[in-house]
Amino acid sequence: MKRIGIIGGGQLGKMSAQAAKQMGFYVTVLDAAPQCPAAHIADAQIVGHLYEADKLRALAKVSDVLTYEIEHIDTQTLKSLHNEGHTIYPSPAVLEIIQDKLTQKQVLAKNGLPVPPFEAVDDLETLTHFPVVQKARKGGYDGKGVVVLKSPADLVNALQTPSMIEELIDFEKELAIIIARTPTGEMATYPIVEMVFDDKTNICDIVAAPAQIDEVIAEKARKIAQHAIESLEGVGVFGVEMFLTREGQVLINEIAPRPHNSGHYTIEACVTSQFEQLIRVISGLPLGLSDLLRPAAMLNLLGEPGYSGPPVIEGLHEALAIPGLSFHLYDKANTQPFRKMGHITLLDESLESAIAKIQEVKNILKIKAENTKISY
Amino acid sequence: MKRIGIIGGGQLGKMSAQAAKQMGFYVTVLDAAPQCPAAHIADAQIVGHLYEADKLRALAKVSDVLTYEIEHIDTQTLKSLHNEGHTIYPSPAVLEIIQDKLTQKQVLAKNGLPVPPFEAVDDLETLTHFPVVQKARKGGYDGKGVVVLKSPADLVNALQTPSMIEELIDFEKELAIIIARTPTGEMATYPIVEMVFDDKTNICDIVAAPAQIDEVIAEKARKIAQHAIESLEGVGVFGVEMFLTREGQVLINEIAPRPHNSGHYTIEACVTSQFEQLIRVISGLPLGLSDLLRPAAMLNLLGEPGYSGPPVIEGLHEALAIPGLSFHLYDKANTQPFRKMGHITLLDESLESAIAKIQEVKNILKIKAENTKISY
Repeated sequence: MKRIGIIGGGQLGKMSAQAAKQMGFYVTVLDAAPQCPAAHIADAQIVGHLYEADKLRALAKVSDVLTYEIEHIDTQTLKSLHNEGHTIYPSPAVLEIIQDKLTQKQVLAKNGLPVPPFEAVDDLETLTHFPVVQKARKGGYDGKGVVVLKSPADLVNALQTPSMIEELIDFEKELAIIIARTPTGEMATYPIVEMVFDDKTNICDIVAAPAQIDEVIAEKARKIAQHAIESLEGVGVFGVEMFLTREGQVLINEIAPRPHNSGHYTIEACVTSQFEQLIRVISGLPLGLSDLLRPAAMLNLLGEPGYSGPPVIEGLHEALAIPGLSFHLYDKANTQPFRKMGHITLLDESLESAIAKIQEVKNILKIKAENTKISY
Repeated sequence: MKRIGIIGGGQLGKMSAQAAKQMGFYVTVLDAAPQCPAAHIADAQIVGHLYEADKLRALAKVSDVLTYEIEHIDTQTLKSLHNEGHTIYPSPAVLEIIQDKLTQKQVLAKNGLPVPPFEAVDDLETLTHFPVVQKARKGGYDGKGVVVLKSPADLVNALQTPSMIEELIDFEKELAIIIARTPTGEMATYPIVEMVFDDKTNICDIVAAPAQIDEVIAEKARKIAQHAIESLEGVGVFGVEMFLTREGQVLINEIAPRPHNSGHYTIEACVTSQFEQLIRVISGLPLGLSDLLRPAAMLNLLGEPGYSGPPVIEGLHEALAIPGLSFHLYDKANTQPFRKMGHITLLDESLESAIAKIQEVKNILKIKAENTKISY
């Protein structure tokens, strides 16, 4: 059995490690925090930052294959390791494209894939049309690194970092799909799901699987996403986020070169989870079946605003009494406002009922912290 | 979140720890082997034998609740810990009854539950009727501690240990069910499954879920098993093994006070696995849904006869190409003939097809060891 090295030890690293340990792989994780979520599961941890070349090299030394759970890592060292013969999935070349949102869009557009109108912007003062979305080219996550500029007055809120601008899409729904692709080009595609974002935080809050859309549109979205991963020659597991416009157009918003929040539901709701699929792909094993067993809704458990410190869970007993519910806590030492602390997946005979129940859970289950209410 | 202590670090401990870690619990495991399967997952391990009182006490000290993955442990110390106020599920009183197969049968019979005719036997020479099954009162597992005595000539093979004898049941099928029961008496019952034993090894080889039996018989078996767990006032997760006789009678063969091999399929095939169910029960959380999502067959991966040493897996790539298959390897440092090294669960639209595919896997997937073929 191959030894697996995971760069990044957050919840995606933890759940990937869980899938790997179930199959008996030896797992080492690289993360700066000794008590990171994945460290609780992995066989070993190298404590170090994801831009420290020597730490990445140390991980490569004890691993037969490397993968990552986050885009914000040292691509140059990964490229060197790749050139020296180390196996890294997805490849550093793909990561480099995806890591820079502008390059990503340019490559997608060049391959004929539908994306929102976009442009590089060096000087925001030259902007003449509004509203637009400004996105940091690198380093954004969980709604950070994205700002909507509705008028010139909003320019004071603009990101002061290399960025791109996109047309603000008046979308009907935000869709996503998980696609796994092997070194020989086989693909496993999961159902198209619907991402529901919280108005206030701009964080994806609830994921509904499958998306409540016309099958023709679902098929179109699936084809576009598959084409995107093929164009990139991506090997690994990818989350493809898309907009469904009010005119029925499907546009690619963003691609993540790793298991994706919108695919957490696959752990309980599909035959093979996105995490097991990743482990299969990178270890050279065949893809598993991606069938959806039952409709599912997923709720991200975010740190309650106003609290910080070791987490205290409120309403767990009441929430877990709801039939069909599975509870995941990521083992993060401290909660912070809106930090992803865990998630809930709810399987039900109908998606409507699953969504209704998960809305109920949202009101019941709170991640707070003892004696550490933050004053604003 | 409560701290969980698991007595025994084999595969059942590992899979229980996996369920606990998914939910964010802190897990300590007690096992004599530092590299035991559960040690790869648990937060901490106490290295010690399961009959060492001070080690059990050390585990209790760092845990809010104790459970166990094996019956062969020091009940006296558990009783003392229980009396001192420690929470232990299932209770040491239940464990003590189940641990001794004769006592177990006596208690079941006293509660009006159907069991095969049995008797205590002090002197095997007094046996007058054959065939019978001789069972060691304590310590048996995986077919060990059970001998069929077909005639007086077989007495040379009899177990030289305190034992009981049972009538040899000419059964049609061996059935099993997983039942979870909470401190307040709620129960979650899984489907009745069918256990298929290998003729040569007497080890349960394949489990088919659900059992291919009449629904009236399934309901009867479910009621008997529920009544048995209620009679014992059992709190935890229990595997109840039953015989279905050719006359349609259901007789209890044995009860295990822990997650059971016949319930491994619940990880992929049910909404809540038997392992998550155990963690929910012992931590005072409500029971999860035990619905079967899709028919499933489970195959135990046993160490190939003739091999011993660090395991080498043959046919993994070919096996994992079969759609619907999930692979579990237990992280045991060494394989031995017929040792349980892992398991496969196969989900399919029809049970017949799942069984056919798992028979195929049985021919493909072999756990061997490099350069260590044993000569007999």
